[in-house]
This record gives sequence, C-alpha cells and structure tokens, in this order.
Amino acid sequence: MSLLIKNGRIITANDDYIADIFIEGETVKAIGKDLPFNAEKEIDASGKLVFPGGIDPHVHLDMPFMGTFSSDTHETGTRAALHGGTTTVIDFVLQQQGHSLHEALDAWNGRARGTAVGDYSFHMAVTDFNEHTKAEIKQMVEEEGITSFKTFMAYKGALMIDDRQMTALMQEVKKQGGMVTVHATNGDMIDYLIAQNKAAGNLAPLYHYLSQPEVTEAEASGRFADIANYTGCPAYIVHLTCEGALNAVRNATRRNQKVFVETCIQYLLLDASLYERNFEGAKWVMSPPLRQKKDQDTLWAGINQGLVNIVATDHCPFMWQQKLMGKDDFSKIPNGHPAIENRMELLYSEGVHKGRITLNRYVEVACTNPARIFGMFPRKGTIAVGSDADIVIFDPQEKHVISAATHHMNVDYSAYEGWELTGKVKTVLLRGQIAIDEGECLVPRGYGQFIKRKKVNAFI
Amino acid sequence: MSLLIKNGRIITANDDYIADIFIEGETVKAIGKDLPFNAEKEIDASGKLVFPGGIDPHVHLDMPFMGTFSSDTHETGTRAALHGGTTTVIDFVLQQQGHSLHEALDAWNGRARGTAVGDYSFHMAVTDFNEHTKAEIKQMVEEEGITSFKTFMAYKGALMIDDRQMTALMQEVKKQGGMVTVHATNGDMIDYLIAQNKAAGNLAPLYHYLSQPEVTEAEASGRFADIANYTGCPAYIVHLTCEGALNAVRNATRRNQKVFVETCIQYLLLDASLYERNFEGAKWVMSPPLRQKKDQDTLWAGINQGLVNIVATDHCPFMWQQKLMGKDDFSKIPNGHPAIENRMELLYSEGVHKGRITLNRYVEVACTNPARIFGMFPRKGTIAVGSDADIVIFDPQEKHVISAATHHMNVDYSAYEGWELTGKVKTVLLRGQIAIDEGECLVPRGYGQFIKRKKVNAFI
Amino acid sequence: MSLLIKNGRIITANDDYIADIFIEGETVKAIGKDLPFNAEKEIDASGKLVFPGGIDPHVHLDMPFMGTFSSDTHETGTRAALHGGTTTVIDFVLQQQGHSLHEALDAWNGRARGTAVGDYSFHMAVTDFNEHTKAEIKQMVEEEGITSFKTFMAYKGALMIDDRQMTALMQEVKKQGGMVTVHATNGDMIDYLIAQNKAAGNLAPLYHYLSQPEVTEAEASGRFADIANYTGCPAYIVHLTCEGALNAVRNATRRNQKVFVETCIQYLLLDASLYERNFEGAKWVMSPPLRQKKDQDTLWAGINQGLVNIVATDHCPFMWQQKLMGKDDFSKIPNGHPAIENRMELLYSEGVHKGRITLNRYVEVACTNPARIFGMFPRKGTIAVGSDADIVIFDPQEKHVISAATHHMNVDYSAYEGWELTGKVKTVLLRGQIAIDEGECLVPRGYGQFIKRKKVNAFI
Amino acid sequence: MSLLIKNGRIITANDDYIADIFIEGETVKAIGKDLPFNAEKEIDASGKLVFPGGIDPHVHLDMPFMGTFSSDTHETGTRAALHGGTTTVIDFVLQQQGHSLHEALDAWNGRARGTAVGDYSFHMAVTDFNEHTKAEIKQMVEEEGITSFKTFMAYKGALMIDDRQMTALMQEVKKQGGMVTVHATNGDMIDYLIAQNKAAGNLAPLYHYLSQPEVTEAEASGRFADIANYTGCPAYIVHLTCEGALNAVRNATRRNQKVFVETCIQYLLLDASLYERNFEGAKWVMSPPLRQKKDQDTLWAGINQGLVNIVATDHCPFMWQQKLMGKDDFSKIPNGHPAIENRMELLYSEGVHKGRITLNRYVEVACTNPARIFGMFPRKGTIAVGSDADIVIFDPQEKHVISAATHHMNVDYSAYEGWELTGKVKTVLLRGQIAIDEGECLVPRGYGQFIKRKKVNAFI
Repeated sequence: MSLLIKNGRIITANDDYIADIFIEGETVKAIGKDLPFNAEKEIDASGKLVFPGGIDPHVHLDMPFMGTFSSDTHETGTRAALHGGTTTVIDFVLQQQGHSLHEALDAWNGRARGTAVGDYSFHMAVTDFNEHTKAEIKQMVEEEGITSFKTFMAYKGALMIDDRQMTALMQEVKKQGGMVTVHATNGDMIDYLIAQNKAAGNLAPLYHYLSQPEVTEAEASGRFADIANYTGCPAYIVHLTCEGALNAVRNATRRNQKVFVETCIQYLLLDASLYERNFEGAKWVMSPPLRQKKDQDTLWAGINQGLVNIVATDHCPFMWQQKLMGKDDFSKIPNGHPAIENRMELLYSEGVHKGRITLNRYVEVACTNPARIFGMFPRKGTIAVGSDADIVIFDPQEKHVISAATHHMNVDYSAYEGWELTGKVKTVLLRGQIAIDEGECLVPRGYGQFIKRKKVNAFI
Repeated sequence: MSLLIKNGRIITANDDYIADIFIEGETVKAIGKDLPFNAEKEIDASGKLVFPGGIDPHVHLDMPFMGTFSSDTHETGTRAALHGGTTTVIDFVLQQQGHSLHEALDAWNGRARGTAVGDYSFHMAVTDFNEHTKAEIKQMVEEEGITSFKTFMAYKGALMIDDRQMTALMQEVKKQGGMVTVHATNGDMIDYLIAQNKAAGNLAPLYHYLSQPEVTEAEASGRFADIANYTGCPAYIVHLTCEGALNAVRNATRRNQKVFVETCIQYLLLDASLYERNFEGAKWVMSPPLRQKKDQDTLWAGINQGLVNIVATDHCPFMWQQKLMGKDDFSKIPNGHPAIENRMELLYSEGVHKGRITLNRYVEVACTNPARIFGMFPRKGTIAVGSDADIVIFDPQEKHVISAATHHMNVDYSAYEGWELTGKVKTVLLRGQIAIDEGECLVPRGYGQFIKRKKVNAFI
Repeated sequence: MSLLIKNGRIITANDDYIADIFIEGETVKAIGKDLPFNAEKEIDASGKLVFPGGIDPHVHLDMPFMGTFSSDTHETGTRAALHGGTTTVIDFVLQQQGHSLHEALDAWNGRARGTAVGDYSFHMAVTDFNEHTKAEIKQMVEEEGITSFKTFMAYKGALMIDDRQMTALMQEVKKQGGMVTVHATNGDMIDYLIAQNKAAGNLAPLYHYLSQPEVTEAEASGRFADIANYTGCPAYIVHLTCEGALNAVRNATRRNQKVFVETCIQYLLLDASLYERNFEGAKWVMSPPLRQKKDQDTLWAGINQGLVNIVATDHCPFMWQQKLMGKDDFSKIPNGHPAIENRMELLYSEGVHKGRITLNRYVEVACTNPARIFGMFPRKGTIAVGSDADIVIFDPQEKHVISAATHHMNVDYSAYEGWELTGKVKTVLLRGQIAIDEGECLVPRGYGQFIKRKKVNAFI
Repeated sequence: MSLLIKNGRIITANDDYIADIFIEGETVKAIGKDLPFNAEKEIDASGKLVFPGGIDPHVHLDMPFMGTFSSDTHETGTRAALHGGTTTVIDFVLQQQGHSLHEALDAWNGRARGTAVGDYSFHMAVTDFNEHTKAEIKQMVEEEGITSFKTFMAYKGALMIDDRQMTALMQEVKKQGGMVTVHATNGDMIDYLIAQNKAAGNLAPLYHYLSQPEVTEAEASGRFADIANYTGCPAYIVHLTCEGALNAVRNATRRNQKVFVETCIQYLLLDASLYERNFEGAKWVMSPPLRQKKDQDTLWAGINQGLVNIVATDHCPFMWQQKLMGKDDFSKIPNGHPAIENRMELLYSEGVHKGRITLNRYVEVACTNPARIFGMFPRKGTIAVGSDADIVIFDPQEKHVISAATHHMNVDYSAYEGWELTGKVKTVLLRGQIAIDEGECLVPRGYGQFIKRKKVNAFI
C-alpha cells in the first residue's frame, strides 16, 4: 500500500517543518514539499502535528504479580497504546528464580505472539544471576535481540538480586553489548518499613507511600550508579521519581559517568496527596510511590537539563476488584496504574501546551530516546526516509476529557479521570498501516510484531 | 537552480539514513529514496556522509584587539570556514565603553557586509551597560535580529562589566527574549596574577597559562550561574575549558537551572604542556588557556552527558609577526588561535572516528545546537524540508594532514600542524549553491548573508 | 588580690567537673578539690556553672557609619558586654580609603584607650590595599599584635576591595602569619537591587531584606573560599547566615580546605518574618539580613558538625532616633542591632537549655574558639592554670526577661524585648577582679586592656 | 597513694599550660602552680608533655577469626597499649549468628576479666538482629554499660546484617540511647571480586587490595549515613580510609546530619604501594586495605576540618605463621595488623612534630573524643580534677626506632619496622598508679578494669 500525508507540521526530536510524507509499504519513502507521488490513499494533515509513533519502554502486560495478572493483555494493552499514539512498547520478561531466562521468554512469547496489536519488544528481567544465566546473556543479545537486562534492588526472595550478582551481571552484560536497567529502591529498608507499619496496624494505602521514603530510592540509585561506574556497564534507571535519586545521577556526572534516566508520566503530574483519600488511594499504589511537588519540579527540570531521558509509564493496570485484595492491608494491593493510553496526550497537554518542554523535546523523550537508547533506532522513533512509518497525526488544539468510560485499556478506573487535555491523537500509522483513525482501531489482533533490538551504546 | 544529491548517508542531530536530497533555489525541497526529480545538477554522494553545514557560534573576524586586528577578515574567515564545512559563523560585535551598541554594530556591519563569503550573524558584546544601552537591547532583539548579548567578567577597563551591570543586563535581556553569554573568568584575579608574574620577571608564554588558573574560571562560572538563576535569564557560558567550571554548571542543575555550555575544539584536543615550548607556546596563547588532560576527559564526558552543548572555536587568528609583539612579555601576545577551518574535521576525526561521540552527537554540537540555542533553527543547523540547503558532503575515510601550507585561513601558522586526520570535507553547499568543491571555493566575496535571529528559549 | 571560687561546676570547651579555683593577681593559680589556699575573698559557686569569660570577636563600638556613630562607646559597650558575661571583645578598625592603616588605628586607639571597661582587641579592616598598605601588614602583625585583616566584598567606594586586592592581600597576610576575614556578600548585586527597589518606590525595611537575597552571600562566600584556597591563606567568614553560604564552605572541604566560620546569635534565633512589621523592622536592619527557619537549622547543625566555629554578635547598636534616619528609605537605616550583652545568655538558654548544643560546645563557640582562632589562647578563652582569670559564674536555673528597660547597652530598644530566658550571669571576673556582681559593675572606666594577639594558624 | 607531677606542660584537647598535678588515689585532685601538697611520690616533668592516657576505641584482642585467634590477648594487648601511652581500649564482642548477645559477652568477659592490664570496655557487634536480640539492646545499655553497637555491611553469612536489620537496629538503639557503629564496605561487591580474582588465579596480597576498591567503601558509607539519617540514630563509621567515603559524610552534612568518623593510624601513614611487595604485603592485609596518597591527604584534612573525629588502630595482630595461612590465597590471610602500641607515638611524630595537626587536636582525636563519643567522659580522656589519673608523660624530643625486636605486642613483625620517630612515652599512669616507667610495666595482669559506659549523644 502507499500513502501520502499532506501538509502536516512534522516534528521529530530534532526537526520542525511542514511537508508531505510519502509511504510505501511499511516505511517512509520520501518527505518533501508538494511531492509528485500518486498514493493509494491521502491524508490531509493541514493544521496538524505529525510526529513519530510513541514508544513506551516500560509496560507490564499480562504479568503474573501478587497472585494475579495485570489486566491488560498484549492485545488490549498494545491496542490501547495505539489509541493513545504509542506504536511500540517494551514489556518485561520476568525470570523466575531457579529457572532459566529462556523459560521465561518462552512464557512471554506464548502470551504475546500472535496477540499483540502494536509492535513490542522485551526487556529481560534477571532475577537470579548464576553460571547458567550468565551463558544466556549472550544468547539473548545475539539470538533474541533482547539487549537490555532489568534488575530489581527490591522484592527480596522474588525478584531482587544482591550487589554480588549485580556486579557480575554488569560485567557480563557490558561484555555482550547490552545495558543493565534497574528498579532502584532499597528493598530491605522497604520490607522492614512495611512490616513495621503492618505490625503497628497502619494498613491504609497511605502507608504504602510512607514505607517507601525518598531515601530508599536515592540510596539505591546512588549504589547502582556506583557499581555501574566500577564495571563500566551502560546503565539505566527506570521510573526515577525524586530529587534525591536524580541528585545521585548528578553526582555521578562528576566522575564523567553517564547514567540514563527514565521517569514516568505519573511522577511528573501526580503527587502523594492522593494517598490521603482513604482506600481510593489504592488507584495510585505503585512502586515507587508518587512523591512531592518539589520532585515534580526536579523531573521537569531534569528533562530540560538532558539528565532525564525518557518519559514512560510503568503501565501495570489492575481492575478495582483486584485492588480490593488490599483493602485491609496496603501490602496486598497489586502495585501499578494504567497509563499506556494516556502518556502521549498527557505529556503533550501538560508539557508542551503548558510551556514546560518544547515540541522537539516532547518527541525526544516520548518517541526517540526509547528507540535510541534501547537499540531500535533508526527503524523506530523518528520520521525519516527508510524508517518504519509509525506516525501520529495529532490535533494540537482539540480538547477532550480522560475517562474510564471512554478509554480502551482493560481496567475499570482511570488514574486521570476527568482531566481536561488539550491536544488529541487523530490518526496513527504503524508500519504504513492506518492503525487508528478517529478512535477506531483498524488493524487486527496479531498485527503487532516483535522488534529485535541491537546492541546498545554507552552514550547516545 | 536545482540540485540533487544522490545516495548519501544523511546525518542530522537526530537521524541517520540513506536517501537523495532535492534542492530548489536556496532550500531543501524533498528527501527520499529514488526521488523522481530532474535537477540541473546531480551529485553522487554514495559512500559519503551528508550533514548540515557547520555553525561556529564563536569567532572573531577582523577584530580590533590589543592594538592590532585579528588576521582573518569576514571574507577570508568565512571562506576558510566554508572550506572546513562551516557555513555560518557568529561573530562578536564589541561595544566600546562610553559608546552605544549601535555605533559598534555600524562598525562591524561596515566590515562584514558585502565581504563575507559564508553566512554570518552577530552577538552583541555589552561592555558598558547603562540607561542608554538598556534601551538598545530591545532594538537589537526586535529590529536587528541580534538576540544574544556577550559579557566579559575579565578585561577590566576595556570589556568587563561588574556584577551590578550583569544583574541589570540579565533582567533586561530576559525581558526582551534574549540570552546572556559570558566569558567567565575572574578578571581581577587574573590581572593581579599577570602583574605579579611580570613584576617577578616571568615573561614567557607559560606565565600566560599560570596567570589564569582553573579557579579563575570555576569561580566566575559559578558566579555567573548564580546571577542567572537569580534573574531567571537564559544563560550560556562560552569557551568553557575545565572540570571546575563544568562542576559549577553541574551544581546549578541541583536547583533546577539550565545553563548552556560551549567548549572549543582546542580544549578537547590540546593541553597546557604546549606552553612549555618556550615562545612557540605563543601559538596557543588564548584566554582561557589550554588546560590539563583531566579537563579534556571532563569535556568529552560533558558532551555525552548533555551538559556541554556546543563545540565552537573562538577563532581569533594572529600572524606570527603579531604574536611576536609579546616575545618579551606574554601579556602582549595577542590572544587567540586559528581553528575556524579545522573544527569540523578535527571533531570528526578525534571525536567520531575515535569513538568518543556518535555521529548524531557530532552534528548536534557542531551544527544544530548553535542554530537552536541562538535562534536560527530550523532555517540553519539541520537537513530538513524547508531548511536552507547548507550541506556538507564528507568522506569519512579520506585521510589528510593539516598544515599552514594548505589551509585557507589568513594566518601563517597552524595550531595543528602535521595532525593526521581521518575524514574530509569534499563538497559544501550554502543556500543551495555549491560553495566548495574539492578544495575550490565557487562562491564570491559578498555571497554571505547576515542572518537575523529569533528570540531564544530558556531551554531547547 | 587573691580569690577562691568554691565548688562550682567548671565548664571549659573540653571539661566538666566540680572544683575550686584559686586566683592570685590576674591569673588562675590552681584548680582542685578542697584547695588549701587562703584567699582574700571567697565565692561560693555551689550549684552554679563556672565558665570562661565570653569573647565576642565581632563588635562595632563608637563606629562612624552612614554619617553617625554606633551608639555604644568602648566604655558603654564593653561594660554591657561584662554584664552579659563577655569579658573580651574584638572591635574593627576601619581603614579609610586613601589613608593608611596606622591612621585608622590611631583613631580607634584614641577612642578606646583609657575608656574601655572590658578587655578588647582590634581587627584591622583593609579597605584599600596597595603598596603602602602592604608594608603595614607586617607592622600590624609584628608590632601592634593585630593579626586578623577584615575585608569587605560589599560597600563599593567605601569599604569594598576587589578580587585583585583580595588575592594580593591574602598572599601578604599569609606570609606575615595573619588571617583574612571577610564580609562575604556580593556588593555589586546588592547595590543594584537596592537601587532598583528604591527606583520602584519600595522603601520599607522589608526591601532591605529583599535586596540581599541568599545568593549574594552564597556567591561571595564561595568566591572568597576559592581565592583563599588558591593563595593558601587562613580564612574566616564573619556573620555567615544561610544554608547557601555554609554549603560553599562544605564544598571547600572537598578540596581539603578549612575555612573558619562565624555566625551571630541573631541568625540562630531570629528570622526574616520580623521585616514584615512595617518600620519596626528597622530594629533588625543589619547586613546580611535575618534569613529563614531553614537557615537557622543549618546553622545549629553546622555548630555540631564542627563547621560553624564561633557565635558572635556583630553588635552595632543605633538609637531609635538614628534608625529613623531611614524611615522613608530603608537604605538610610543605619545597619546593625544590639546584642553584645545578650549573646551569652541567649545562646545558653536557646542552645544549651533547649538541648541543641552541649555545654562544652557552648563554651567552645562563645569563649574558646574566638581566642584560639584569633591568637589570644591560652591567655583568654579557657579556665586553666596560668590563664587570665576571666570567669563567669552562671546560674543555669534562674529565669529572667530581656528588656531595654534593664539592659546596660546604650540603646533605647532591645532586639529581644520580652524574651524569657533560663540561665543568668551572676558574677563576672576579669583578670582576677570582680567586674560584675549581681548586676553591678565593680570595675571602672579604663579597666579594660588592649590584648595583643599572636600569629594565627591555618587550623586549630 | 598520692603523687605529684611537677612542672609538666599539660596538654588536653583544649588546654596547654605548665603546672603541677596532684593525684590522690585513682583521680586527679588538683592542678596548679607550686601546689602545696605533700605527695608520696613526685615526678619531675619539666620539659615534658603531660597528656591524658590514650584511648583506642578499635581493637580486637584474642579474637576468633578465620579459624585462629588474634595473637594479642587482653593481657598482652593492653600491656603493649600501656607501653605506647594508651590506657584504655575498647574491644569488640562479636555475637555469633543464631546466638544471643549475652552469650558472646560472657565469652569475652571470660577472656578479659582478670587478665587485662589496662582498662577496657566493649562494643557489642550485632551480627544477627531479631526479636530476641532486640530485647538485649536495652539490657546492654542499662545493665552492662555497653552503649555502642557495631554492625558489618560485609562478611555475609558470618557478620553481615542486611539493611532491613540495620534500619530496625538503629531504631532500637536510638530508643535506648546508644550509638550504631559500622564497618562500611559493600560486602557483596567484595565477595564477588574476591571470587573473581581467585577464579582468575590472582592470589597474591595485591588482590586483597584490588578486591576492595574505594567504591565499595564510599557506597556503603553513604548508605549507612542514609539509613542513620532516616532513623535519626547516632552514627559512627569505623576505620574510614578514603576520599570517597569521607565525601559521603560531607554530603550528609548538607542535610544537617552529623556522622562521627574514625580513621586509623595506618590509613594516615601507609599506602597501597606496600601490596606490591609480593607476600610481604600480607603484613598489611586488613580490611579496608591501605589506600592512596590522595586519601591520606583527605584524612589529615578531615581531622582539621572537624569531620574525622578519632584516630584508632583496628589493632588485630597475627603472627607471621598465621599470615602464612594465606600464602597461596590472599583470601586466607588473617586480616589485621598490629598498632596498639605505636599509635600515640606515630601520630605525635607524623602529625604534631611534622606540623600537620596541633597538640590539642592530637589529644582530641587520640584521647578525648573516644571518651566523649563513647560515653566515658569525663572519667576518661582528659586531665581534669576528678578524672581518672590516666596520664602520659612524654618526651617530645626523644628519637627512637620502631622494631618488632623491642615492641611489647605479641606479634613477631612490626608494620612500621625501622621507622624513626620523634617523641617518646616515658611514664604512664593508670588510675593513679605508675603503670609504665622507662619501658617497664609496673602493674600486674588483671589490673585493668572494665569501664561501663554511659548513654551517648547525637553530638558532642
């Protein structure tokens, strides 16, 4: 199929101009003024923004957790993502301790292959690093195209690795050309504070927040950066939420180190006052928890300082019924909140429209850097000749309201219910196909492809 | 005229792909695979890199200084720049204390208009800020398209403004939508150390270096950032050379401030050991002076950390005969060194070829950020539809040697004599015209245009 | 005369024990249990604290300033100091620009000699450093026993020296074995902000505060530390008030530097909310101004961290009539507030009694460190055999209220009117004489001696 | 017995004067000029320094470790300490994991009671914190006079507690009025590096050093400070060796925290080049290992900055035969080196005599602060009326050479063999008894007493 998008204002992480885009098959063939191509279909994008499909490098779909599964499957989750302008996601494969990486990969492949609507890739979460796992790192990188390895400094006994394993893993991942990413919170401190709160009868969602004070994240972020610096391994901190943690990254710059930083849309926009709403606070029970206003300021500034590189979601939705598992005990509330569909519009409205970030920066942190840092560039993450035609046509003026009544995620509440946004996704292309048009999904279950990723760089 | 560049590997600050570029008149019309345009001229760029014309935002052409003039005129300087792949430069207009900004602008216009071969713009150096000058700021921004205002924290009695003027200037510049840039060294300390060295009979070039210790730059950089933070004015440090100064910028990030940073190619590549060569050291007498290896490491890391945004030259050449003015007294050596022609090739060879920075980062710091930070984007600094066709076709493999015998700058020595580089500028387009081809300049004196610049942003 | 103080709880910066003190003539002869000496007079100190006479190293007595004189003379000021347990003060001799240090010293000697009731010494404020002054530094140190040299980074045209003079002065002072102390605020910024506020019609005392924002002190403190580090000169910051400035000192520790820090009692206890009281705020118009609660926290912590070494007063009283000079223009309010009499009792009550500092630390910062840092130790600042018998007998339980109605300073208001304190000075000895007893002064005008001081150390 | 020390130059952490000291029984009764007491014995101390007995708060006597025992018993160790001017030591009781604190205390009491020659106290090392242990904390503080609790962040499976236990322990210790001290190195990283070096056949002592890089200590010091700050518990880092770790403490000062810091004499004087001597390097195999020259500079500066509070030894001697256990494997070399006898003379000679620290500071870090921080003050750590007459009479001029041939420690090598020192311990009093005189020990086995300690303060 061929397609011509006419007269849109094209925005990449770098550029900003008005032109036509000619697409043939899955990729962009030409960009120019008054392109003399005949296309099977034309879209008039006058007055619209045209930017690359968003990439959300931090989602949890159909994930077994706390005895249940996150409520979006690869089908519903990637479809909702498409509705919101996100064309590719990176999901997390979780190794089970005592088992191999390949076993976990098989399980995730089993759920995602043939079901995903949008494109996807996997991070591999290494929860048990040993001689056997070590050999698998190379296979993941070379054979599976999985080049990023997630670690947990929390959830002892389930997901956490200790610093011994962290050091060893980093040495191996560096050798194989990959990157280590981290959930950087001090799990031991948190486990203790949770136990202490429970023992004291402090069982409301507020105590989820109070059991994960800023220090637990600042400490672990600094420790992770220290080990990464020692080993020389490319390093990335997921869902960084607070000033203390970003200061750890700033400190690391003084020894000429580069640590990549991801925050999530909720940490830019929401704060811990939501936990004061009794059990309704469960909607925002996630780890790390929401923080303070001063942390939001730090994160916005961090984006403009070039220190915060990516805005993701950590999308991990649970139905209200699932959240109720913790109604008498915050530690039993499944952690996570839905945002995969809202990220691009929220960030545009609150970031660009309100003047906090530029349009180019918007594309950089929401679309391009995820591709660049995680080895999918230039296939994904930009609008350029030869790149996949993953494109969002966006009305920067249209106002709309977020609601669970209208969203496409498989979850019965919205974390942003009633928020009025300016700017709306109108049409979304994925590999040259119109995937979304005016709120309708036009590509079928299984359209999504697994994206093999390249080796990463220590810097971008 | 129309022109088709075929099959080049196009590199922007963001992208990297192979395509054709079709140019009509002064601007890019289309980019694509197998573009079906007939052009008056075709260039085969197979196997070549094709990137935006370089922008050097820190040059001093035909500048009165220490009783003489820098030896490159706007004609010879911009022509040499074109030879080296730099299509636009920003020169500094220096207000004379007691006189108006407009008087200075008139003088610079008189020298540059009709003579420049490449495109150029001006920074306005405010050396005397008072009620009269204050009124001129708005005029510069609104009428002249000069939106950046240079200040000196050194050279008391000639160029320096005090912190009172700095604060006042920043308030006014912020109000008018401009940016304040700074030569950040503690002039008082330096003046004292120079006098002390001279009194002690320490007259060799080495004492130029020893009279400007790192602390003088670190201190002033911190002070400038402090005042900028207080006033909220967009701020930019020119020719930052050392760890101490970059750490001042890092400290500023902790209060959510963004300070733009420029270094120069020489601070990345040369070090102070050159001052031990007796009077030959005069070739590298510039301010700030060359620093240590550890400072080079800091600067390369700073680029990859996103904290150093631009690599310029501070090109300010003097003939050897001029340098000899200081043969018995380092303080009489005209400050400056020639690099306008070498910057792009040096940075490619030492940066990209040696694996210190990526190709995209190369274009970002040498071409794009100067345009973006100083309000010339997207007209300049990128290869995109609608942008000026300022384009470099570059052979990434060709080896060559730098020499005064072959360079085009009007100066009789090279600061990099004998350096062997990998990667060479082959063809350069400026606004759609082939300006340089295989070492020949094809555009005449006066081809260069003055570029009016837009208001700036506090972040990019 | 001989004197026996019996059974007091003796507190020094180091020790804490109950014993008798036997004094013969001006000095302590013995300390012990049940000392078998016959003294002409005995004082029963059972239940009392016995600590060294306080030393206030920052007072301005009979000082010409803003066209008037501070209202305490050397007589009234040192007498009030004695009432409050301070037996020695260090006053500032201010060089007049264009005149010599000796001229200024003569003027101060003329006012202080034969009039002071308590002991005193002088800092020399160098406001004009040149070849002539340079030669005087050695004379001050060697002949006059004046080993500390005060500098001002503010008050351009009257007191301020530039960084050129600062660097040169530090080199000379280091060579002669002295110390450079500093009023560290960026005078240029402040001058500009004052002018701006006045131009805008902002004339109330509040604008005194708003014209000296924290950055002006943080910046100058950092700059001073930088120059001190470069020159290697022993360095001391007077009246440090805020977090930003103390952080500059903390930063300096990372390069293995020691900068001595003085704060004043008012910065520990009062905050800027007092400036919101319309013109009554003039009572606390001083430079630097009072700061925020967070700065008080920083200062108390700094004492316990060993980073804040001294608590002084910057005593500089003006009658209300004098303060009224600025009733229509904050910049005409004479700067300063009265505290010389209150310091020891305030610091005890708010510091020791409220548990913020230990008794030993109290003596250290109020009595011992001023002697140690400024070269009067061990003659002054401790209770030890051979030291001057400058001793305070203090009732730690007695409650009393501060009031202008009862204080002995020559000023018609109190900065702490109505404050209820716990702990009261009962008896004060100066060189073996009972100077104060139950609120009466028993030594005459002229009893006070000038204390020649020794060369200083870079550390203590 | 009564004793009169005549005409010595008495040095405390604060004072410096010449006087007589009259001692009756175990304590000081009076200090003065020409004291009119008849004593059973007089010592002429003219020309000598007289300072408090040293306190070494970090020694390991008769300690089971790595299958053997440290070679000094409480008898030989405390006797050697006395020879070197150290009158009190604090030894470490090590809880065995799975057993109670009391069991461990019983074992240590069994070895120390009735055998120690000098006075001693115990820290309690908590290696297994649980509900049972928690209850013992209060008992230790209230009943046993053990108020400091040592933790290990290394030696997993033997001594290490995790951050969960650390947080919980700190909360309990704070509540009971104690202090938590720490061996702050990242044990997991070290374990991994040791294993990796061994796997690679790197078995020489040098690899002991290379398995404990600076980052392992810097990281753990920061983490410990973080947890201490969160819990508010008084905190102390033992044997801090390096710039990175001290910077973690400096960072903590910015949030108004005070962390006490101990270094050891070897880290001030020796460096890692000793590990290049093949197996002779085993003499200095200890944890943390010796560091670099830049770290020595940091530590000396830290003392003068008031950030390093104590100089101890971590005395833990092993016979050469014991060291040989690791001749084929560095990880089997018993860790530790002998210094209990040398500390006071080394610190005097290298610190005071060479001008790095003052005499008062010497006494502060070697005698007074250990008493003050650990709750033995003012009974121990000073020369004052009522304090124990623990006194060193020291010849500041006498030169001598350190050698295993002449030392009194039960170990057959010296870590400082052949070092020439200036300044020598001549006579040592312990609780009024002449314990050492001219190299002879005059008090018997069992003379040493256990010193019960008081609750501690968060600051001193």
